[in-house]
Amino acid sequence: MLNNWPRWIVFLAAAIANRWPWLRRIVNRAAVNSAVNSARRRPHIYSTYHDYVSWTSLTDQTWSARHLPPGPVRENPTPEAILPLFQRTQGQVLSDKSTCLFPAFAQYLTDGFIRTRMPRSDEPVALRRRNTSNHNIDLCPLYGRTPEQTLALRARDETQGRRGRLKSQIVEGEEYAQFLFDAAGVMKPEFAALDEPLGLNNVVDPVQRGRLFAVGGDRVNTVPQVATINTLFLREHNRVAAAIERGHPTWDDERVFQTARNVVVVCFIKIVVEDYINHISPTPFKLYAEPSIAWLAPWNKPNWITAEFSLLYRWHALIPDDMVWSGTPVPVRQTFMNNGYLLDAGLARAITDLSAQKAGKVGPFNTAEALKHVELASIQQDRDARLQPYAAYREYVKLKPPKKWRHVSRDKRVQKFLSEVYADPGDIDFFVGLFSEDLEINSPLPPLILKMVALDAFSQALTNPLLSEHAFCPETFSDEGWEVIQSTSTLRDVLARNATLPEDAYVGMTQKTWRHRWW
Amino acid sequence: MLNNWPRWIVFLAAAIANRWPWLRRIVNRAAVNSAVNSARRRPHIYSTYHDYVSWTSLTDQTWSARHLPPGPVRENPTPEAILPLFQRTQGQVLSDKSTCLFPAFAQYLTDGFIRTRMPRSDEPVALRRRNTSNHNIDLCPLYGRTPEQTLALRARDETQGRRGRLKSQIVEGEEYAQFLFDAAGVMKPEFAALDEPLGLNNVVDPVQRGRLFAVGGDRVNTVPQVATINTLFLREHNRVAAAIERGHPTWDDERVFQTARNVVVVCFIKIVVEDYINHISPTPFKLYAEPSIAWLAPWNKPNWITAEFSLLYRWHALIPDDMVWSGTPVPVRQTFMNNGYLLDAGLARAITDLSAQKAGKVGPFNTAEALKHVELASIQQDRDARLQPYAAYREYVKLKPPKKWRHVSRDKRVQKFLSEVYADPGDIDFFVGLFSEDLEINSPLPPLILKMVALDAFSQALTNPLLSEHAFCPETFSDEGWEVIQSTSTLRDVLARNATLPEDAYVGMTQKTWRHRWW
Repeated sequence: MLNNWPRWIVFLAAAIANRWPWLRRIVNRAAVNSAVNSARRRPHIYSTYHDYVSWTSLTDQTWSARHLPPGPVRENPTPEAILPLFQRTQGQVLSDKSTCLFPAFAQYLTDGFIRTRMPRSDEPVALRRRNTSNHNIDLCPLYGRTPEQTLALRARDETQGRRGRLKSQIVEGEEYAQFLFDAAGVMKPEFAALDEPLGLNNVVDPVQRGRLFAVGGDRVNTVPQVATINTLFLREHNRVAAAIERGHPTWDDERVFQTARNVVVVCFIKIVVEDYINHISPTPFKLYAEPSIAWLAPWNKPNWITAEFSLLYRWHALIPDDMVWSGTPVPVRQTFMNNGYLLDAGLARAITDLSAQKAGKVGPFNTAEALKHVELASIQQDRDARLQPYAAYREYVKLKPPKKWRHVSRDKRVQKFLSEVYADPGDIDFFVGLFSEDLEINSPLPPLILKMVALDAFSQALTNPLLSEHAFCPETFSDEGWEVIQSTSTLRDVLARNATLPEDAYVGMTQKTWRHRWW
Repeated sequence: MLNNWPRWIVFLAAAIANRWPWLRRIVNRAAVNSAVNSARRRPHIYSTYHDYVSWTSLTDQTWSARHLPPGPVRENPTPEAILPLFQRTQGQVLSDKSTCLFPAFAQYLTDGFIRTRMPRSDEPVALRRRNTSNHNIDLCPLYGRTPEQTLALRARDETQGRRGRLKSQIVEGEEYAQFLFDAAGVMKPEFAALDEPLGLNNVVDPVQRGRLFAVGGDRVNTVPQVATINTLFLREHNRVAAAIERGHPTWDDERVFQTARNVVVVCFIKIVVEDYINHISPTPFKLYAEPSIAWLAPWNKPNWITAEFSLLYRWHALIPDDMVWSGTPVPVRQTFMNNGYLLDAGLARAITDLSAQKAGKVGPFNTAEALKHVELASIQQDRDARLQPYAAYREYVKLKPPKKWRHVSRDKRVQKFLSEVYADPGDIDFFVGLFSEDLEINSPLPPLILKMVALDAFSQALTNPLLSEHAFCPETFSDEGWEVIQSTSTLRDVLARNATLPEDAYVGMTQKTWRHRWW
């Protein structure tokens, strides 16, 4: 909106707006509407099913939607020829803004609704065009994707003092989800309805297998930092349920559970906007989650996850080669499917460690050797979905399409590489262009990703049914829950309620010492 | 909107508005918005699952939504005590406005999306709180509810001249759906994915069984007048597919089918608004289906069929005791599940006969003895769903709630009956109140039903994804299909294209000689 103004003027305006509630409200509304209106409103009319508009493309959400229709098949370089653009040649470049709490939260968030259907080895690759998403921010990694999964995860105990809880266990005085396997290494029958953890076949060590959590999301166990975020919200759910139960002794297990879930989902959405999006945002204006902005907005249309969205969230470069657990750097590979690191550290230590460590930097020439197959697969997925080129998507969100190589990046190495593999800047693949751009100043993300993330975040978070016109009121959440919602804005807020946190502990997605560059 | 003005002024204004396109556009938009805004906008926050707001009540559409939350259990008369209000004491009273084409179309329309789940005898009655609806006007009686059903109904022939068609057969020179059973009385395996026709067990005569159609809707075969409407749209689909195929010889069966389906669904919606709603409407202003009214409207929210909607459409009194088939009156009972009457008459004769016969009148004391169990079941369904009383729903749609018995009806018999079974006008059950009211002048319906039908019709028809902002353009329908849409407004338009119709034949839901009362 203010892209063409000198940064110091924008920053001054933001500083003023942050101070005055009435002005903050106006600026917040304008910023959200501007982000959402940068592209065509939903309903999307294309999906990965048909190249033309059909009843299936308009209604069958098991296929992914598309922002733009498929383009013609192009004569572009092979994924292998493009790979060096992603591959690291020296040491990993780190972010100057983000801590490791940022990618941990981003992964937990997106695993909940970018749910590309993963084909088994005997299934066709085309299954990737389908998804298993509920197309809503519903905290399904915590609560499950289906009613059956939710039932399997609930304690369902009508005893006073235990109503409305999720199943949990205490390990060394701290609360976690229950383990999926019993002592004999057999999956507990009560969890049969859950999706099998992705990558389970690679877990051969029985101790490590025994520490996998029984959770709603098939990716929660992938790395312990994601299990960390899930543990935080599991505790919050059970804490909120206890508070609601105390206030409403006549409510049964079902009502306490449902009401606590309403509260925790809305708290999560508030954190998405007020913690996560504010971390990404390049301006110091503090955006906040104001449900009423969406109530009468023409862009308030049902969510539908797009094929493009699943590609632009491939932020593997954010993960450092070594993650710090209990003060010790551990090679990331070693932490895969290994919740032992979380159990040893405990929740508060795990999150403060994540908040103390710099994340990697998103962008070219920064992917570890071990992850190059992921980049290859992403380029191939872009081609399989016949996505239009990078330039078309720039135009779609009202950014200038590149005419010269230097319009993509000021980095000479990037310009040289692109000019050697592509005939014209207009040919660059969507996925390649996304990660070739320079970072936006004051943001951990480059401009096209930033714009598309903001667009989809607001238009999909504020349309949540719990924030809708008649649902967003104290009756839906109970007085106790309403109070929790009002006092939640960041992950720190939730952690402080669910762990013993030293008062000076730093918890944040932004590095403690980071300051906006305003010149 | 103009309820408080003298009728002749409203009629004069309507006559003027009908003449001038620009004025007609303004009045049409105002009338639609006024109809939709008479009640709270969606999303509904309650469903038949929980008495409070929960993630399930907000998202699980297999439960029916509710306009109002459940009320407290009331001490009201038994359904049996109320039954005499519905029972006919003399001969059937006929409508002075509607022909039998009106209930035939209404039943076909509502069977497509008011899909209360019918419990089998061994299932709990509470299943009625669930539904099998797609919550959209998608012509599922023709195309099926699921992708598998659609595939079973399609010819799927890539031969030039046969692409994109629905399966059909020619009987005595006329096109119909194929029969469900083979000559030996066995259901054809190709139709295994279809829902079994409701009431199939009562069909013992092998000839009658052999004439049941293989169709998308489980209620299409119930009475031949509903099968008649389905036959009309089956022919229209295959006719449109042929036209599209001729214009696009390179399109495959899939694309021709999908595009023809897009066209026929939109034609159907146009008929809902321009033929059906205009028949119901008490003013002579000709409403029309203008998709753009919904594009930016705050009420454009996803459809969700409500528990109330399924009750207010119980218009059994509209069906005369004897239906005329090929010029001969036949007791309705005899026509159940008997498509022989349609096959003998042919499509044009069937529809002109329906257009020549007066329908019954909606209202009290007019239900045939044979249908009294249906009224009992409806009162019980109202109670089971714990619907709030009639007065609450009047208030909900901005009509005055009754303070005296005479506010419900001017009919002394009705007043007397209600005052004998209920303690207060505020206690009257929703279902009972709906059908106790006097008809609105110039409409075949009483005021509360009229208002709720208009509200739900516009807010659910104009939100169809095919009418949405980016979908409603010639590309979605092909030039041939776009032309068909432009030239479709009434059932007569479609019939004239699909049958040999004498030029002076009368086809309409309104009786040929009926005129508005404007004084």
